[in-house]
Amino acid sequence: MKSTESLDRLKLLLAKLPGVGRRSADRLAIAMARNREGYLGDLVATLQAVAREITTCSLCGAMTAVAENPCRLCTDPRRDERILCVVEDPGDIDLVERAGLFRGRYHALMGKLSPARGDGPASLRIQSLLNRIQGGTIDEVILALNSDVESDATAQFLAEQLRGRPVRVTRLARGIPAGSGLAYADPVTLAAALKHRTSLDHD
Amino acid sequence: MKSTESLDRLKLLLAKLPGVGRRSADRLAIAMARNREGYLGDLVATLQAVAREITTCSLCGAMTAVAENPCRLCTDPRRDERILCVVEDPGDIDLVERAGLFRGRYHALMGKLSPARGDGPASLRIQSLLNRIQGGTIDEVILALNSDVESDATAQFLAEQLRGRPVRVTRLARGIPAGSGLAYADPVTLAAALKHRTSLDHD
Repeated sequence: MKSTESLDRLKLLLAKLPGVGRRSADRLAIAMARNREGYLGDLVATLQAVAREITTCSLCGAMTAVAENPCRLCTDPRRDERILCVVEDPGDIDLVERAGLFRGRYHALMGKLSPARGDGPASLRIQSLLNRIQGGTIDEVILALNSDVESDATAQFLAEQLRGRPVRVTRLARGIPAGSGLAYADPVTLAAALKHRTSLDHD
Repeated sequence: MKSTESLDRLKLLLAKLPGVGRRSADRLAIAMARNREGYLGDLVATLQAVAREITTCSLCGAMTAVAENPCRLCTDPRRDERILCVVEDPGDIDLVERAGLFRGRYHALMGKLSPARGDGPASLRIQSLLNRIQGGTIDEVILALNSDVESDATAQFLAEQLRGRPVRVTRLARGIPAGSGLAYADPVTLAAALKHRTSLDHD
């Protein structure tokens, strides 16, 4: 149906978003197009405000106000600039912040190495990471990447790039998620949880 | 962060879409806000075109061009107006069309009965369905609803509403999905597949 071409264009645009397949793009486009309670108008106005007001922090890659660049996390003097937490996506910064334990700085790579999608080192914010470390104030780099084949390869690549520099490179612990059980853990996770078991005296 | 308020508003708007939880709304909003290759501008222009050009078919509820209402499926003289296929969402119409077998008309309910979400019969396009049947040209109503507790209750409710009217009410067969195996079928599905087994002579 040529006459619903704009709806087809919307489906294609939504399917470009991470984690949105063709089927869910179709579903989302139709839900938007139904325009209940003026949804389309609200969405357009909000996207225009985002385009006007939001940008990527030039230092860490987090989403920040255009008027606050570098972002608050990068300029907050109470945060420890000697520890850098490297994440894949800007959204992961919020997740680490919610955990409430980390008080250092961040660096978002904007993805991971993915030969399948053609994303090599140049597609990621790796050079700017090396530049920040070059500055000499950073003692430790925590690789807070996801846990899949591509993320592991990215962590490996970064560890190699950082070898020989005067920084400690660590990564998140693997283990049984809180609220879960052994039955749901794969053998690799369970092996890691056993190997790095913690004493109840300490915990 | 008050200064990224428009991004927070975008997250809330996206979380209103069906099947989008808080986590995925956050992820989608950030992916949009990153604005790679002018994504936000394209999305805004496309949504404005959709708002201008697309509407809900007054007869069947499918998405259609404003200039084509009732939609092409409703006005195509080659389609059999004696059989009406009732679906939950307008997007389901495309799925049935892709199956390539059905040549009747459609009616989208725009959801299903859901006490949890406060969606009763008045929230759905049930009265307009009854009005269409009242017209007297429809011989069969196929309830092509999903297969969960709320959808089954909706089918039950519709069957009761249609009792006593001169229409045959049918529903989609249950069985083993093509390309799947017995090991993945729940007992109810397997029981239905056994009960309604088909002869290889016929199929």
